[in-house]
Amino acid sequence: MDTTVKTENITIVLNNPKYPGNIGSAARCAKNTGIGKLFIVGHSDPDIEEIEKMATHVASDTVENIKYFKNLDEALTGFTYIVGTTSRLGSVRGPVVYPREMAEQITDISQNNQVAILFGPEDTGLTNDELNYCHLLVTIPASSEFKSINLSHAVMILCYEIFAASTPTPERFTPKMATSFELEGMYDHLKKMLVKIAFINLENPDYWMTNIRRFLSRTKLFSKEVQIIRGICRRVERSIENKKT
Amino acid sequence: MDTTVKTENITIVLNNPKYPGNIGSAARCAKNTGIGKLFIVGHSDPDIEEIEKMATHVASDTVENIKYFKNLDEALTGFTYIVGTTSRLGSVRGPVVYPREMAEQITDISQNNQVAILFGPEDTGLTNDELNYCHLLVTIPASSEFKSINLSHAVMILCYEIFAASTPTPERFTPKMATSFELEGMYDHLKKMLVKIAFINLENPDYWMTNIRRFLSRTKLFSKEVQIIRGICRRVERSIENKKT
Repeated sequence: MDTTVKTENITIVLNNPKYPGNIGSAARCAKNTGIGKLFIVGHSDPDIEEIEKMATHVASDTVENIKYFKNLDEALTGFTYIVGTTSRLGSVRGPVVYPREMAEQITDISQNNQVAILFGPEDTGLTNDELNYCHLLVTIPASSEFKSINLSHAVMILCYEIFAASTPTPERFTPKMATSFELEGMYDHLKKMLVKIAFINLENPDYWMTNIRRFLSRTKLFSKEVQIIRGICRRVERSIENKKT
Repeated sequence: MDTTVKTENITIVLNNPKYPGNIGSAARCAKNTGIGKLFIVGHSDPDIEEIEKMATHVASDTVENIKYFKNLDEALTGFTYIVGTTSRLGSVRGPVVYPREMAEQITDISQNNQVAILFGPEDTGLTNDELNYCHLLVTIPASSEFKSINLSHAVMILCYEIFAASTPTPERFTPKMATSFELEGMYDHLKKMLVKIAFINLENPDYWMTNIRRFLSRTKLFSKEVQIIRGICRRVERSIENKKT
């Protein structure tokens, strides 16, 4: 996929969260995943200290920019696409998607639309009436033994999937793997050394070399690691030479 | 993929967590995702009340079964595969994978091996020495502005990916979509009704019908919804009949 989610057009909307700590946690999740906006419904006078504690100082700008609303209607006015979260499934609620599909579905939409990701209160979740505002319902897969996921954890999972869909190839460190030329040079060197220390005998050297090749190739050696192994071989050889003299 | 992760062979290991609330949160994550085991290193006398508060009573069996260890060596003794988590990347740390790849990689391994998912303390994460225990390093992709993810959120994301890999087709509610036969019946009915109420005229009925088809087909109608639309058509028709008489 060429297009990626526009995280600047995504807003996390928490409807009547009970614990200010969860507001702070959600702010941190948003900051961790490049989602700049957080709307809170039903907290006109929140415990800022508790929010800031969970948000950490790095997300303080996200906390400062939180918008507070009296009711859900007001909070959702500016959005053209609303994703509702639910842990309860059934025919009344209609079809739902998983977080990964949700992120895929909002990729195109987020280019030119303001998208809200709406979460209900910790204890009850969103009501059927509130879900009626939504264009898409998403549920987080969970064990049938305990489906109820902590609010801030649910926020994190959706933010994580949105972030993953916003950066198809995020930078990550992958060292250069060794070339076949480097590997063969190393195996030759190893074989000579192992013969010198009489670990393998010259009559049937390939039996042990096959075993050694098997586990070394499985590790997908990097250039640097090939050099380390050859360095060890050289030191062993030199130690033997020195002992002889 | 046919094989799925065996969650009973997965253990979450928290090394020196600072806040007992995070232990409780991790227990809840484990319970949410069918991972039964949680090991804690460095808390011989934890604040059980705080743990239970964050775990909720549903995860109380997971909390009761937590095993406590003095040091990391001891905790890791029984594992044959250890996954280390890190937010810091670089040549010293070597290659890392993302959570989804991690879950794929441990799928086969988890069939016959005890797998530990190891997390460091909230403030510092795992040290290079501790990462040396690990067979695989995993990092959660995050915004370059704020890479540090809350410990319990990191636990949740990895548990979520493991759970997703443990149930390739988790049950979810998808109503039956309408057949082409049902849809065509509905469009015919709609057309007749729209002619009756003079919304479209008989000379060029297809212009408006094409537009109506376009948005109705985009919504992927279910059988039940087709019946609702036809029901509305019938009521409109009957209301007109009644008015005439």
